[in-house]
Amino acid sequence: MNVRDLARARRSVRRFRAGLVPEDAIRRIIDAGRLAPSGATRQPWRFVVVDDPKTKRAIRVACEQGEREFHARAPRALAEWMATRGITPDKPFLEEAPYLICVFYDAHQPYPVHSTWIAVGFMLLQIVEEGLGTVTYTPTGADLNRILKVPPKFKLAAILPIGHSADEPASPPRRPIKEIGFRNRFGDPF
Amino acid sequence: MNVRDLARARRSVRRFRAGLVPEDAIRRIIDAGRLAPSGATRQPWRFVVVDDPKTKRAIRVACEQGEREFHARAPRALAEWMATRGITPDKPFLEEAPYLICVFYDAHQPYPVHSTWIAVGFMLLQIVEEGLGTVTYTPTGADLNRILKVPPKFKLAAILPIGHSADEPASPPRRPIKEIGFRNRFGDPF
Repeated sequence: MNVRDLARARRSVRRFRAGLVPEDAIRRIIDAGRLAPSGATRQPWRFVVVDDPKTKRAIRVACEQGEREFHARAPRALAEWMATRGITPDKPFLEEAPYLICVFYDAHQPYPVHSTWIAVGFMLLQIVEEGLGTVTYTPTGADLNRILKVPPKFKLAAILPIGHSADEPASPPRRPIKEIGFRNRFGDPF
Repeated sequence: MNVRDLARARRSVRRFRAGLVPEDAIRRIIDAGRLAPSGATRQPWRFVVVDDPKTKRAIRVACEQGEREFHARAPRALAEWMATRGITPDKPFLEEAPYLICVFYDAHQPYPVHSTWIAVGFMLLQIVEEGLGTVTYTPTGADLNRILKVPPKFKLAAILPIGHSADEPASPPRRPIKEIGFRNRFGDPF
């Protein structure tokens, strides 16, 4: 599949089947991220692959605790919006996915956030190419550095749970190009 | 080409040939970005395609002014490092590339930076698929909102100059997976 077909086939998968995921697939997914460009080619990313059930459990507990605090503090409009979307503090995919790829970046390098999210973009397409699913999960308030013994200069960007989808999620409609693309000045049609 | 072949073929291109770039290619590049996931699917990105020479000139002037101020303020170590890499305030590619795609994000949406840089990642691979080149340029201090009449809630993420490469840039070596990928805890081999 070409890039746009992969991008179109991608879904945000939050439920996973128990089925085996070949470790080579995880390695190719990391490889795709590793090949991304980065500020001054400093490659600020680090990937901790988690397949140990106890470690996944600890990550889930920490993330759900953070989510509960976030939900408790959420302004009413946001809380209502999350309720309509079925978004709760429960993150079972953190245990159900055979693998979690925890993506960190070295905050002391140039453009570490930008670079690392380009790498996440490359990884998302590689995950589709592998016939696997993920959701780009950005926890709030969970201390994964402690759980995974990651030095403090590295900050968590996202957790990518990886597995075979047990879900048939819809792809939300996208804005047409005429709403988001312009020529020479904002508002002029491209 | 598959994702990793595209990622491996990608180079940071800073010199462009005058050759024609089909507008459909630009449209497909934006389409690839448009298909990226985003926080709450809010699609915070906006793309202003610039092909007008006067507008490209204005962008170059503003960016080079910002670069000169940045270079003047740079700490000695950074200045020396930039000198060894041949990095100067001159950004001729901003006029030489047939197209600039100026990428903005709506700062009021959830995870706008993360989402938009995933979209940039998708676009970078599409650019390779089109047989074209780009460099992910993040200006400092240039007010592109003014030049392109972009409302202030949108912030500039990057400029992607697009064209046929007049360059044969090397691909800087990447860290092997054993340096950046770990299993279950930081430092343990994957």
